[in-house]
Amino acid sequence: MGDRGDKVIGPVDPMQVPRFAGPATYARLPALDAVGKAQVAILGVPFDSGVVYRPGARFGPAAIRAGSRMLRPFNAWTEAEPFAQQVADAGDVACTPFSIEQAIGEIEAAAKATYERAPHVLAIGGDHTVALPMLRAASARFGPLALVHFDAHLDTWNTYFGGARYTHGTPFRRAAEEGLLDLRRSLHVGTRGPQFSAQDLPEDAALGFRLIDGRAIDDRGAAAIASEIREVVGQAQTYVSLDIDVLDPAFAPGTGTPEAGGWSSREAIAVIRGLGGIRLAAADVVEVAPAYDHAEVTAIAAANIVYELLCLFAMTKGDG
Amino acid sequence: MGDRGDKVIGPVDPMQVPRFAGPATYARLPALDAVGKAQVAILGVPFDSGVVYRPGARFGPAAIRAGSRMLRPFNAWTEAEPFAQQVADAGDVACTPFSIEQAIGEIEAAAKATYERAPHVLAIGGDHTVALPMLRAASARFGPLALVHFDAHLDTWNTYFGGARYTHGTPFRRAAEEGLLDLRRSLHVGTRGPQFSAQDLPEDAALGFRLIDGRAIDDRGAAAIASEIREVVGQAQTYVSLDIDVLDPAFAPGTGTPEAGGWSSREAIAVIRGLGGIRLAAADVVEVAPAYDHAEVTAIAAANIVYELLCLFAMTKGDG
Amino acid sequence: MGDRGDKVIGPVDPMQVPRFAGPATYARLPALDAVGKAQVAILGVPFDSGVVYRPGARFGPAAIRAGSRMLRPFNAWTEAEPFAQQVADAGDVACTPFSIEQAIGEIEAAAKATYERAPHVLAIGGDHTVALPMLRAASARFGPLALVHFDAHLDTWNTYFGGARYTHGTPFRRAAEEGLLDLRRSLHVGTRGPQFSAQDLPEDAALGFRLIDGRAIDDRGAAAIASEIREVVGQAQTYVSLDIDVLDPAFAPGTGTPEAGGWSSREAIAVIRGLGGIRLAAADVVEVAPAYDHAEVTAIAAANIVYELLCLFAMTKGDG
Amino acid sequence: MGDRGDKVIGPVDPMQVPRFAGPATYARLPALDAVGKAQVAILGVPFDSGVVYRPGARFGPAAIRAGSRMLRPFNAWTEAEPFAQQVADAGDVACTPFSIEQAIGEIEAAAKATYERAPHVLAIGGDHTVALPMLRAASARFGPLALVHFDAHLDTWNTYFGGARYTHGTPFRRAAEEGLLDLRRSLHVGTRGPQFSAQDLPEDAALGFRLIDGRAIDDRGAAAIASEIREVVGQAQTYVSLDIDVLDPAFAPGTGTPEAGGWSSREAIAVIRGLGGIRLAAADVVEVAPAYDHAEVTAIAAANIVYELLCLFAMTKGDG
Amino acid sequence: MGDRGDKVIGPVDPMQVPRFAGPATYARLPALDAVGKAQVAILGVPFDSGVVYRPGARFGPAAIRAGSRMLRPFNAWTEAEPFAQQVADAGDVACTPFSIEQAIGEIEAAAKATYERAPHVLAIGGDHTVALPMLRAASARFGPLALVHFDAHLDTWNTYFGGARYTHGTPFRRAAEEGLLDLRRSLHVGTRGPQFSAQDLPEDAALGFRLIDGRAIDDRGAAAIASEIREVVGQAQTYVSLDIDVLDPAFAPGTGTPEAGGWSSREAIAVIRGLGGIRLAAADVVEVAPAYDHAEVTAIAAANIVYELLCLFAMTKGDG
Amino acid sequence: MGDRGDKVIGPVDPMQVPRFAGPATYARLPALDAVGKAQVAILGVPFDSGVVYRPGARFGPAAIRAGSRMLRPFNAWTEAEPFAQQVADAGDVACTPFSIEQAIGEIEAAAKATYERAPHVLAIGGDHTVALPMLRAASARFGPLALVHFDAHLDTWNTYFGGARYTHGTPFRRAAEEGLLDLRRSLHVGTRGPQFSAQDLPEDAALGFRLIDGRAIDDRGAAAIASEIREVVGQAQTYVSLDIDVLDPAFAPGTGTPEAGGWSSREAIAVIRGLGGIRLAAADVVEVAPAYDHAEVTAIAAANIVYELLCLFAMTKGDG
Repeated sequence: MGDRGDKVIGPVDPMQVPRFAGPATYARLPALDAVGKAQVAILGVPFDSGVVYRPGARFGPAAIRAGSRMLRPFNAWTEAEPFAQQVADAGDVACTPFSIEQAIGEIEAAAKATYERAPHVLAIGGDHTVALPMLRAASARFGPLALVHFDAHLDTWNTYFGGARYTHGTPFRRAAEEGLLDLRRSLHVGTRGPQFSAQDLPEDAALGFRLIDGRAIDDRGAAAIASEIREVVGQAQTYVSLDIDVLDPAFAPGTGTPEAGGWSSREAIAVIRGLGGIRLAAADVVEVAPAYDHAEVTAIAAANIVYELLCLFAMTKGDG
Repeated sequence: MGDRGDKVIGPVDPMQVPRFAGPATYARLPALDAVGKAQVAILGVPFDSGVVYRPGARFGPAAIRAGSRMLRPFNAWTEAEPFAQQVADAGDVACTPFSIEQAIGEIEAAAKATYERAPHVLAIGGDHTVALPMLRAASARFGPLALVHFDAHLDTWNTYFGGARYTHGTPFRRAAEEGLLDLRRSLHVGTRGPQFSAQDLPEDAALGFRLIDGRAIDDRGAAAIASEIREVVGQAQTYVSLDIDVLDPAFAPGTGTPEAGGWSSREAIAVIRGLGGIRLAAADVVEVAPAYDHAEVTAIAAANIVYELLCLFAMTKGDG
Repeated sequence: MGDRGDKVIGPVDPMQVPRFAGPATYARLPALDAVGKAQVAILGVPFDSGVVYRPGARFGPAAIRAGSRMLRPFNAWTEAEPFAQQVADAGDVACTPFSIEQAIGEIEAAAKATYERAPHVLAIGGDHTVALPMLRAASARFGPLALVHFDAHLDTWNTYFGGARYTHGTPFRRAAEEGLLDLRRSLHVGTRGPQFSAQDLPEDAALGFRLIDGRAIDDRGAAAIASEIREVVGQAQTYVSLDIDVLDPAFAPGTGTPEAGGWSSREAIAVIRGLGGIRLAAADVVEVAPAYDHAEVTAIAAANIVYELLCLFAMTKGDG
Repeated sequence: MGDRGDKVIGPVDPMQVPRFAGPATYARLPALDAVGKAQVAILGVPFDSGVVYRPGARFGPAAIRAGSRMLRPFNAWTEAEPFAQQVADAGDVACTPFSIEQAIGEIEAAAKATYERAPHVLAIGGDHTVALPMLRAASARFGPLALVHFDAHLDTWNTYFGGARYTHGTPFRRAAEEGLLDLRRSLHVGTRGPQFSAQDLPEDAALGFRLIDGRAIDDRGAAAIASEIREVVGQAQTYVSLDIDVLDPAFAPGTGTPEAGGWSSREAIAVIRGLGGIRLAAADVVEVAPAYDHAEVTAIAAANIVYELLCLFAMTKGDG
Repeated sequence: MGDRGDKVIGPVDPMQVPRFAGPATYARLPALDAVGKAQVAILGVPFDSGVVYRPGARFGPAAIRAGSRMLRPFNAWTEAEPFAQQVADAGDVACTPFSIEQAIGEIEAAAKATYERAPHVLAIGGDHTVALPMLRAASARFGPLALVHFDAHLDTWNTYFGGARYTHGTPFRRAAEEGLLDLRRSLHVGTRGPQFSAQDLPEDAALGFRLIDGRAIDDRGAAAIASEIREVVGQAQTYVSLDIDVLDPAFAPGTGTPEAGGWSSREAIAVIRGLGGIRLAAADVVEVAPAYDHAEVTAIAAANIVYELLCLFAMTKGDG
Repeated sequence: MGDRGDKVIGPVDPMQVPRFAGPATYARLPALDAVGKAQVAILGVPFDSGVVYRPGARFGPAAIRAGSRMLRPFNAWTEAEPFAQQVADAGDVACTPFSIEQAIGEIEAAAKATYERAPHVLAIGGDHTVALPMLRAASARFGPLALVHFDAHLDTWNTYFGGARYTHGTPFRRAAEEGLLDLRRSLHVGTRGPQFSAQDLPEDAALGFRLIDGRAIDDRGAAAIASEIREVVGQAQTYVSLDIDVLDPAFAPGTGTPEAGGWSSREAIAVIRGLGGIRLAAADVVEVAPAYDHAEVTAIAAANIVYELLCLFAMTKGDG
């Protein structure tokens, strides 16, 4: 679905060009500049100045791209063909590391520019701060969005350190305040770990978010979680935001605020595969910090999660 | 519950002091010296001269403290508030690496001195040798203790290398011989991996220990295991000793005798959360060897396990 | 069962020689040269020139041996005593890294020479290319073999890069073409990840292979998978080939083509333990690439899988 | 020289408390709070939001402290006794990662508060941005300072990304503009690597800085460099700012903007030892980013450089 | 000097696009496809099937590109402006890992195609096998070439393992045999480590190569070595081939056959800077194996060496 | 010079058996058991219970062997042929980690048993504690020995932690007290780093040791140091003990008490090569702790140092 004709350009052929060679784009797909337009654009957002603990997610987009070199075009398990639609790599946003608010503006502008060329944008972070400008841009296009937020943490805190409002711990409170979300259809999934106080969950619920917490995977399993998510979001235009720390540190050591007791990558993939049929508008996969990764374990998990989200886009009908 | 008045001093406020700054105590809690007395004292025991394979757990206390910087005060999942009781970091025992028996004496003395200032002591190791002097001190205070021993290994072997009786493979045989344990109420949990011979399990059983082996988590699940443990220990004063190698090497690479096929950190946390209501007298978390860790995966798991044990202390009524 | 008399020589005694000392053979067992003959010979095949992505499995045999130093002789969970039969380490095949076809010939010759001294050979790789010559040698002895192929990938592709027929992605297609397999009794287990096209699975099935894919472990569990495998292979002479990437990258980071969403080491061990009673003729454990490993996590998992296969040999009656 | 009497409190005795145990302060020295006043205060500045490439120096102070555990009190090579003067660890500045300008204010305030308790402050960073507030505080006390700036880079660029004036690439231009430096007595040492343009060096010289570039160590040796530095700074009150990237990446992999071709740690130590007799007012050692370090190589080098600077303070007479 | 007009397109502006963002080309230069023609083309050759020890240099081109993100356009020390000439990244050769001879043919063809678009080609490897096809292509253009071969090893062995003629240990013997070299003007520099026999050096000399061995840097220094090299090659068209293992493993851990006692990166850079004025026709930098690298130490050193070679091209007059 | 005839058995031929394959002995030499007798026996001493900081040297012998796989038989730079004499690997001493004094006895006994089969023994450690029993055994054979002690530290402290006399910080004081050394001909080389007090160096000198400290390499160079050493030891039977921490942590990160500012591996090799003509009786290379190593940098340096010592043995005439 590029603008150079009917032909969709897929990944470089691994039978001709070895996987360790060739372009450094996601899945060795064409650059968006090369195809002009795409059905889904993958946008790198190398920003990590909003983190409270380990920085380094500025190198996340490059890591996720490196971790995607082994992907193949047919998802035999869901029968999705994610690259049958034109997917293209839009490169990186050039955003400053030195001012969070300036960077948020730059990301929002870059995302909006990308929407000129693709009906769907999937951001690869970068820290979770980037969800706010990505939601602003998506909401500008789709209206208030249902939110499926996979994360160990709520990310709806208010401020830090004497008033910092824009950080990786606050994007969804800001998004809620700004009216970017359809709060009847928004939820956190995979939340675990200790909270600051007994008020955290009630306050988050008061904002309107539902919660499928970290115990659910043991109690009810991945399929049931997927089904609950589908019920919440229904056929609303939906934004999926996945913080890689929803995975256990064993599966995602390369992240900024690791939290023991998380999902396996198999569970994460199973949940996302179970979302087939939702109306996926936009998405992000964030908080991959490769300086803490080993053998690309985190990057490969993230690249596969992006892949499964691309399959959901492929299964979303008629929204381009 | 410090001796400077009624006020419990909790962790440094992460909204004022970033988590990567501030004191290097467990959870950035006050030093025991600063508060004088505490309900639970966390005692570092940097001793690893009792190991048969990889040494390095002498750096374990520092690693667990580093891995605890992200903890928050409210356990939303059990509603425990572990820092509502005064928890304090008692620093490290100054024990020699050059003589196991001298070190055991030094640890026992330091533990007893700590009990002068706190009714409960949680040791962070160090190798499993340290369980013996910690049990001696705990037993001196509480009498023979029920034991919940989480570990890949039995640790009830007799001697090594021509007579070494005090090692990380023998603490619970010594403890049984010394009458420190209530053997009707003591058990190993998570044992897996090959044994030396067909006699190992029967000999261990002959000492009086029960066994919930590594298959149980698959067969019966974490909740059932917790329930079985609660039944065994009943309302006896109980010592929980957790060797981090009860986790799989994927979740705890940083340990001295890793054994394939272990628990996930989620399973370990679920089992410990299921122990609410036992009468926790004392505990240890041992065998974190950070030279083999990656991205603090092991240290974070151990710090969270300590946290869950602190929640159990908080849920133990009337024993201070 | 060596040829120097009745006495089986087991591992070096860890109560006399510390585990970090002593010979660098698998499980510190005797060299095959030292015992002359054995019931099972472990043969290192340090070849990795057939890989499409990360090389390095040439160092795999040394890594698996290092990861085996902690093993003990009694499998309390299956009651197998793998070292009650004579197991010996046959050292490494001296195969060239510079020509895949020459190396395959060298491996086949070395395997056949090993069969002169042991009725069963277990190869430790090396990349999956080595399965082909190992199957040739095993088939020469046992006739066409049932195959249990644990792997994230099918490894039945045809050619790469303008005609390369012998690679780590093609051994089982070659083996099928060469008549080495009993295709009514052969199957892939643990296959996951995207495929090249919708034709991959049907083409593989057309070769005759059955498939227990990656979803089965969630849907039916390890015991059921083991039971299905036993049913497929029946009492045929069986070859088990295990690519360590059947494990998730969290459990096996040190491998050549890691694929998110795999088994845990506990699941792999449970499946293999469930195969007791099959007629195990020969086996391989491949694709351990230690340059990507951490803290020997992969090597220890592989060494334990080799151990469980040795237990299966011990439980296989009357085939020596 | 603490305020509790005449007695200087030195490091914990390593013959009583093993080096892997005991407090996590620099060199296991007392906390400034414990001694009240000190001759030199070591102040952790865990700030890294000013970096253009790899972040992570926020964990630098903790790393340098960990790397200092092996230090001993007598410098046999210069006969300095750095701990004969009271040196104390002032802990970490609580500065926000979310606003560079707010953080600079917080650091300046904390530094000034520390000067209330110690005539000399040595900052351990943190990125090089922190040199600006440290210079402001030092200059408030000592007047305009001679500067000895060890670094691969000039750090006198003007702005980045549309106007960012306060970053780790600009502190000395800002310091020069603010009148904090005695520019007749200020120089860069160890500068190497490519520049942005032919104007960089002339522009820097126009600000007033002298330059001993990276070739000097080969051409003239460490002793001559030290002598040249001593000549430039004379007996002016001097600020030494050392970016760990003055070392080659082999000696300091754990840093934010590594530059090939640098000094060895032996050369750096030799140069600093050669500065005996300068009038050291204050200092910083910055840009240690432990996520990129290995085996504490960088941290140990940095801790030793801090030690040599403490020796220079000890050899500076009459300025307390 | 691209074909789209007069304007040379340099690296992406780091004041607009942060260095961790933007294209993954060498130094963030334009792709050769984007500029059409260039003065120097950088060609990735991700081939490592010719190695005798550690494989992994197939990931070398990507690593060197990642290590080049910090480079700036002005070499203040030699006053060269390497990007004032059009330098462009020609991407990777698609060469098979499965047949050394096929790959050599593919590399030679790709190099020749690149020479259609650029008078000079600098290959980034890849193992040292790639020097042979690069020399074939360069020699086809320039005639027999003077060779400056920086390496710990001679790489003029004959065959391995029963006849392998094309490996990373043999390229310069093959090149000599094929008449690609001007042997009166060819030399090895930095050779060190043990040899196979007393014949190795004489045999190499008999082929015509001169030798500046590893002791020379201590005995005579970098400037003298550079001067000797310049004398040997004179004004002949010269090929520089640099195996990163000419550096000590401390400076280049990420390589295939590390050899203790090598150069520092500072020494290597000094020697290359000293070659200003030679007539550089073509070059390669090989044997970067990132799986063994740490914190990009090797990659950064290699990227800087490539940079210094680009400066030599810039200082070579009139050969385009 | 084995007892099976005249033929010396050298390393496995790397042209037949790839270096990553074959036996795990030092340099792939024969086991001492296989050749019966040897001119030099290499004895692994996997003991590290005497360390004051980082343990792990128990894995040192295996690491040094792994790091020796690339060695070749001809030292072109000194013309020594170290394997022209029979060198054999005597395996590891089975010494307990649980009692320093028991282990010292076991090591002494094993060393003496080895001297029954070889006139020269070179120990690979293990921590520096092992020098004492090795000196006891060597002295029993050769009488009091001249000592060349390469180390960052003096290792002549007296006791630790209330009386520990046998540790890695005390072997040479014990050796001096026991009369094992010819103190007129003994010296420390490479000593650097801070001391405990101004008494350390005088006390050491009072024991009789001379000192070539860490500054000498800069002031006088490797050749002069070698010459000074040769003068001190003269033609006395000499023991060389090399602690790998004489190297800088950049060159030897994998060690127990790293000290900034050390030698490069090139300098160490140059000094040892300069010792040709001393009468080498025995030697050790100790303190390689591979858990802290990276890419075998330390192990390769140590293996090369062992190689250079073997060359010294080869150049020592008439002492077998």
